[in-house]
Amino acid sequence: MTAQQSSPAQSAAPQDIRVGVIGVGRMGADHVERIARRTKGARVSVVSDYLRETAEKVSATAPGSRVVDTWQEVVAAEDVDAVLIASPGQFHREQVLACIAAGKPVLCEKPLAMNPSDAYDVVLAEREAGHPVVSLGFMRRFDAGYGELKDALEAGDLGTPLLLNCKHRNADVLPGFTDTHMVYDSAVHEIDAISFFLEEPAVSVQTVMPRSTEKAPEGLHDPLLFLFRTASGTVVTDELWVSTDAGYEVRTELVGSLGAATIGQESGLVTTQQADGRWGGTVPADFRPRFAAAYDAEVQAWIAAVADGSNVAPRSATAWDGYVAAAMCEAAEQSLTADGPVEVTLLEQPA
Amino acid sequence: MTAQQSSPAQSAAPQDIRVGVIGVGRMGADHVERIARRTKGARVSVVSDYLRETAEKVSATAPGSRVVDTWQEVVAAEDVDAVLIASPGQFHREQVLACIAAGKPVLCEKPLAMNPSDAYDVVLAEREAGHPVVSLGFMRRFDAGYGELKDALEAGDLGTPLLLNCKHRNADVLPGFTDTHMVYDSAVHEIDAISFFLEEPAVSVQTVMPRSTEKAPEGLHDPLLFLFRTASGTVVTDELWVSTDAGYEVRTELVGSLGAATIGQESGLVTTQQADGRWGGTVPADFRPRFAAAYDAEVQAWIAAVADGSNVAPRSATAWDGYVAAAMCEAAEQSLTADGPVEVTLLEQPA
Amino acid sequence: MTAQQSSPAQSAAPQDIRVGVIGVGRMGADHVERIARRTKGARVSVVSDYLRETAEKVSATAPGSRVVDTWQEVVAAEDVDAVLIASPGQFHREQVLACIAAGKPVLCEKPLAMNPSDAYDVVLAEREAGHPVVSLGFMRRFDAGYGELKDALEAGDLGTPLLLNCKHRNADVLPGFTDTHMVYDSAVHEIDAISFFLEEPAVSVQTVMPRSTEKAPEGLHDPLLFLFRTASGTVVTDELWVSTDAGYEVRTELVGSLGAATIGQESGLVTTQQADGRWGGTVPADFRPRFAAAYDAEVQAWIAAVADGSNVAPRSATAWDGYVAAAMCEAAEQSLTADGPVEVTLLEQPA
Amino acid sequence: MTAQQSSPAQSAAPQDIRVGVIGVGRMGADHVERIARRTKGARVSVVSDYLRETAEKVSATAPGSRVVDTWQEVVAAEDVDAVLIASPGQFHREQVLACIAAGKPVLCEKPLAMNPSDAYDVVLAEREAGHPVVSLGFMRRFDAGYGELKDALEAGDLGTPLLLNCKHRNADVLPGFTDTHMVYDSAVHEIDAISFFLEEPAVSVQTVMPRSTEKAPEGLHDPLLFLFRTASGTVVTDELWVSTDAGYEVRTELVGSLGAATIGQESGLVTTQQADGRWGGTVPADFRPRFAAAYDAEVQAWIAAVADGSNVAPRSATAWDGYVAAAMCEAAEQSLTADGPVEVTLLEQPA
Repeated sequence: MTAQQSSPAQSAAPQDIRVGVIGVGRMGADHVERIARRTKGARVSVVSDYLRETAEKVSATAPGSRVVDTWQEVVAAEDVDAVLIASPGQFHREQVLACIAAGKPVLCEKPLAMNPSDAYDVVLAEREAGHPVVSLGFMRRFDAGYGELKDALEAGDLGTPLLLNCKHRNADVLPGFTDTHMVYDSAVHEIDAISFFLEEPAVSVQTVMPRSTEKAPEGLHDPLLFLFRTASGTVVTDELWVSTDAGYEVRTELVGSLGAATIGQESGLVTTQQADGRWGGTVPADFRPRFAAAYDAEVQAWIAAVADGSNVAPRSATAWDGYVAAAMCEAAEQSLTADGPVEVTLLEQPA
Repeated sequence: MTAQQSSPAQSAAPQDIRVGVIGVGRMGADHVERIARRTKGARVSVVSDYLRETAEKVSATAPGSRVVDTWQEVVAAEDVDAVLIASPGQFHREQVLACIAAGKPVLCEKPLAMNPSDAYDVVLAEREAGHPVVSLGFMRRFDAGYGELKDALEAGDLGTPLLLNCKHRNADVLPGFTDTHMVYDSAVHEIDAISFFLEEPAVSVQTVMPRSTEKAPEGLHDPLLFLFRTASGTVVTDELWVSTDAGYEVRTELVGSLGAATIGQESGLVTTQQADGRWGGTVPADFRPRFAAAYDAEVQAWIAAVADGSNVAPRSATAWDGYVAAAMCEAAEQSLTADGPVEVTLLEQPA
Repeated sequence: MTAQQSSPAQSAAPQDIRVGVIGVGRMGADHVERIARRTKGARVSVVSDYLRETAEKVSATAPGSRVVDTWQEVVAAEDVDAVLIASPGQFHREQVLACIAAGKPVLCEKPLAMNPSDAYDVVLAEREAGHPVVSLGFMRRFDAGYGELKDALEAGDLGTPLLLNCKHRNADVLPGFTDTHMVYDSAVHEIDAISFFLEEPAVSVQTVMPRSTEKAPEGLHDPLLFLFRTASGTVVTDELWVSTDAGYEVRTELVGSLGAATIGQESGLVTTQQADGRWGGTVPADFRPRFAAAYDAEVQAWIAAVADGSNVAPRSATAWDGYVAAAMCEAAEQSLTADGPVEVTLLEQPA
Repeated sequence: MTAQQSSPAQSAAPQDIRVGVIGVGRMGADHVERIARRTKGARVSVVSDYLRETAEKVSATAPGSRVVDTWQEVVAAEDVDAVLIASPGQFHREQVLACIAAGKPVLCEKPLAMNPSDAYDVVLAEREAGHPVVSLGFMRRFDAGYGELKDALEAGDLGTPLLLNCKHRNADVLPGFTDTHMVYDSAVHEIDAISFFLEEPAVSVQTVMPRSTEKAPEGLHDPLLFLFRTASGTVVTDELWVSTDAGYEVRTELVGSLGAATIGQESGLVTTQQADGRWGGTVPADFRPRFAAAYDAEVQAWIAAVADGSNVAPRSATAWDGYVAAAMCEAAEQSLTADGPVEVTLLEQPA
C-alpha cells in the first residue's frame, strides 16, 4: 500500500474493530457470517464455543479468525476489541460482567440474565464502570418499520400513546416449547417493544388463555394473550400464536390520541395466479426475511458505536432495558398461573 | 495484530479491495460514502474529480484515501484494485476502455457511452481482453422487489411474459430537463428492465404523447409513454411522469401467461390521522428511500465479484447490456419525433 | 291494469307487504325512506311517533302512508302486515310483545329490552306463540364482509375459532356519552358478532381501561377494551375508541386453527395527491358508508321472510340473540367497575 | 286496503312502473329477476323472446307478468310503461326506434346499434321526439368505484386528466371469441369509460398486439392493447386479457395534473391460510361480484327517472353515448389490421 506514502497528509484507513464471538451455534454463526461478510469496519478475530469442533468450523468461514478454548480467553484476548455473546442465556450474566471488568464493549443476545436480580447486577456493574459498555440484542429496534413508528411517535404525530396492539406469529415451534418459552423467547420481543415505543416499563401483566389450537405441542397454550399496563396507563395487548403453519408475521398497531399507525402489513411481490384464482403474496417461512436487515443494521450500528467510543448505538437496548425485560418476563411467567394481573416491580434505575 | 501469530494455521484476514473513484459529484460522493461506511471488504483508496477542491472534500470523508489530478492516474494507481466511474457520461467510454486496458474491474454508472457505436467499442474491447471487466450501474437489478419478480420469472411461476407495464414518477425535475433527458435519464431504467426481466432487447419503440401537465418545464412533454416490442412479441408500456409534485414512485407489473405480478406497491408505516381523516402512507420525496438498499447491494455484490475474480456480479448489467440500452435509447429518442414505431437495430453480440 | 285479464293463467303481481313503523326519529325515518324508496315488495302504510308532528313529516315522504296517534294503533291496524320498531329502547319489550300477541312479524331495532329478564319475557312469549315472529336489528349480519367471514367459517376454511379481535372506532360521540353507552350503543354490536360468528355466547367479560384520550367527554373512558370468553374457550378482544376525530372504522380478525381472516380493511378510491405527498384513501365520517348497504339488505331480507311466511330471515338476529346480547351487555356493564372477569349467566334457551 | 279510506288526505301509494322486457336470455332473465325481486317501484308486466318457451319460463318467475309473441306487442302493450331491451344487438336499432315512436322510455343493453350510422339514426329520432327516451346499459357508470372517481374528477381534486389506464381481465371466453368480439364485447366498456370520465370522445385509436397467450382461442390475440387519444390530448391505454384463468378484474387509474387515483384494487376478505402459507384474497370468477350492485343501481336509477318523467338517470349513458361508442368501436375494429392510429370521425351532436 502506497497510499499513505504518496499522500502523507491523509489520515490512515481506519483499522477494523476486532470482534470476539462467544458461542457460535445457529445465532452466533449467523453473526460471524454477518461480521465477516457484511459488517463494514469489523472482522471476527477470535471465536469460542463449548463444542471445539463447532468453533473450528465456524472460524474457518471467517478468514483471519482463530479459535480459543474458553470464553474467558475471548474476553482477555489482545486481538479482541469488542465481544459478541451468543452463548446460552445462563452464561450471559457472568460473561457480560467479565466484559465490563475488561472494559470491552459487548453486544449480548437476549436475555441479559436469567432473572431480574442477576440482570440488575449487570446494571450496577456497568454503572460502577462509569461508562456504557453493554448493548443488548433486541434487533427489532433496528427494523425499518419499528424505526418509522418510533420516528412518528417522537415527532408527536400520533399524540399520546393509548394502546399498543402486538401480534406475533410463527409457523411452528420445536417440541418441548412451553408457555414459559412463549414468555422468554417470543413475548420478550414485544416486552422490549414496550420499553422502546412507550419509554416506560409495564407495571402489571395478565395472561389471557384462549382455547388452544390442536397443533400446539404438549405443555403449550397456543395462542396466548398478554395484557400489560404501564404506569401512565397505556395498555398493551400481545397476542402470540406460534403454530400457525402459515409463516412468520409480526404486526404492531400504536393507537395514539392523534392517530393510529400500523407496521408489519404484508408487502413484496403481489401476484394473481391462474393456478388458484387468488391474489396476494407469500408469508415468509421464518423471521429472517422480516428481520434479516434489522440484524445487519443492529450489528453495523454497534460497530459504529464501538468505533466512535460511545459503545452503545442510539436506540439500542441497554443493560437497563435488559433488566426491565427480565423483570417483566418474570411477572409474565407468574401471570401464566395467576388469577388476574401480576404486578411488575422494578428496582431503582441508577442515575 | 497478533491473530496470525497465535494461530498460524488460519488464513489471513482478507485485504480490502482498494477502489479508485473517478468523479465525485453527488453520485460519486454517495458511492465514496457507501464504500467508506457500508461496503464490506472495500475501501476508497484514490479519488479524482475535474474540480480538485471537490475531490479533496470528498476524499477527506474517506480516511486512507488520497487525491490525484487526473482520472488516468486513478486507473494507473498501484493502490487501486478496481475503479468506480461516476463522471459525466461523455467520458465513460474512454475511461472504461482504459480500465479494460489496465485489466482493472470497473463499475461504471450509466450510460456506458454516449451512443451505440461508442458502447459497442467497449463491448469489443472487453471481448478482446478475454475476460469480464465491466459492470454497469443499473442498480434496480439489485432492488429486492426486482429480484423477487426475476425469481418468479425464472421459476416459471408466471409462464411466458406477454406484457410489462412500467410506471416511473418523480416529484419534479430541474429546469432544462427535456424529452431527451426523459429518454436518457428516466426511461433508460425501464429500458434496462426489459433486458433484465425479458432477457431480450426491444426491436421497436414508439412514443405516445399525451397532453402535457401545466407543470412541465419548457421543452418537456410530461407525462410521456413509450411502447417497446421485443422480438418474441412481448410489449412494454413505459409511462413516465416526472413533475407529479407528490414524490417518487416506480411500479412494475409483469403479465405472464400463467399469472400477473406487481412490485413497487406502497408499504411502510400506514397511519390513520385525525388531522385529515385519511388513511395511508407517505410517498418518498425521491429515489433514495426506494433504491438506497439497491445501491448498497449493487456495490457490495460488485466488490464480492471483484474479490472472487469473477469481476461482474450475477444479475449485474454488463457492457453488452450497456450497448443494448444505448441502442434502445437512441431509437427511443428518434421515436420522440417519428410517426409510428422506430426500429431498434443491434450489432451482433460477440460470443 | 289489463295484465291479469289478458293472461288469466298468470298469478297476480304480489301485493306489497304493508309496514307500520313505530318511532320515526333519525333511525325510524331512515327506515321509512328505505322502505319507501329501496325495499322491493314493501311499502310504509302506517306511522306513529310520540311527536305527532314528526310522524306527519315523515309520513309525507312515504306516499300512501297515514299517521296514527299511538303505537298500539300501528300494531292493530288492518293495513299493517308487519311492524318495524325504532322507538326508544325502553318501549321495545312492550311493543314487541304486542306484535307477538297480534301475530304480526316485527323487526325491532336493538335492544330487544332494557335488561335480560325483560328480554327473556319476549323469548318465552314468542315461543308460546309457536312460530317465529321477532327479528332484531343487528344489521352487521347483513354486511357483505361479515357474510364473507361467516361463509369462510361455515365452510371450515379457518378451522376452530381461537380468537376474535374487534376494533370499533368513531369520529366522535355526543356529550353525555358515558362508559355505559359504550357498552349498550357501541360494544353491543361486537357482542352480537360473538353470537353470529362463534355461535355461542360469552361466559365471562372483563373490562380493561387504558389511559383515556384527552378528547373523551366527561364520564367516558376512551378507548376501552372488553375481553370476552366463550364456553368453548374462544377469547374476544373488543377495542372501542369513539373519539378518534378521524372517522368510522370497524375491523375484525378471526384467528382460527387453520388460518386467520380479516374484514373491514380500507378500500375504495386510492389517490396519490400532489398536495400532501401521501397515498391512501378517506376514512368515512360515520357508519353510513360502511353499513348503508347492510341496512338495506337487512330490511329487504326481512320483507322477503315476511312474504314467504318464515318471518325471520336466515342469519338474522332473533329474540334469543336479543336476550343473549342483553345478558352480555349487563355483565359488560358490571365489569366496568369490577375487579377481574364478570360471569355471564343465561337462562335456558327454550327448545 | 283501507289506508286511503282512513286517511283520505294522504296521497295514494305510487303505482309500480310496469316494465316490458324484450329478450330474456341470460342477460334479460337477470333483469327480470332484478326487477321482480330487487327493483323498488317497478314490476315486470310483459315479456317476449324469440323462443316462446324461454319467455314462458322466465315470465313464471315474475308473478303478474304475461308473455306475448312479438317484441312489437311488448312496445305496444297498454300495461307497459317502459321497455327494457336485452335482445341480440342486431335488433336494437329497430326496437329502440319503436320505443321512441311509442313515447315509451327504454333501457337498451349495449350496443345501441350495429354501426355508427344506425346508432345516429336513433340519436336523430330521439331528438325529433323532443324529449329524452333512451338510456343505454353501460352499467359501470353506476359502480361505486366509478362514481367515486367521477366525483373526484368533478370536484377538481385530480386536476386535468392526462392519462387513463384501464385493465380488463376475464377468466376465459367462449370458443369463437375473436379480436372483433374483444372490441365490441370487452373494450366497449372502457370506450364508454372515456366518455364517462373524460367527457369527450377519442379522436384516434391504435391497436398494439403483444405476443398472444397459448390459451387464447383460435382467432383471438390475447392480450390486446388499445391506445386512444382524445381531442384535448388525454391518452387512454386499454389492456384487455380475457383468458387469464384466474378471474375477473377491472382496474382503472386516472392520472391527473394534481394527482392520480385508482379504483378496482382487490379488497374483501383477506386470509392468511395455513394450507399454502399465502396471504390475500380471491379473484371473483366473473363480473357479477364486481358489478352486480352496479346493475341493480342502474335499473333502480332508470326506474326512478321514468317515475319522475326525466326518463334518463343522471350519469346514465344516452343515445349519444351509444353513437359515440359505436363510432369508436368501429375505429378500434379497423385499427386491428391498420398500420398506426385510425381516426375516429363523429357526426355532429344534435343540440
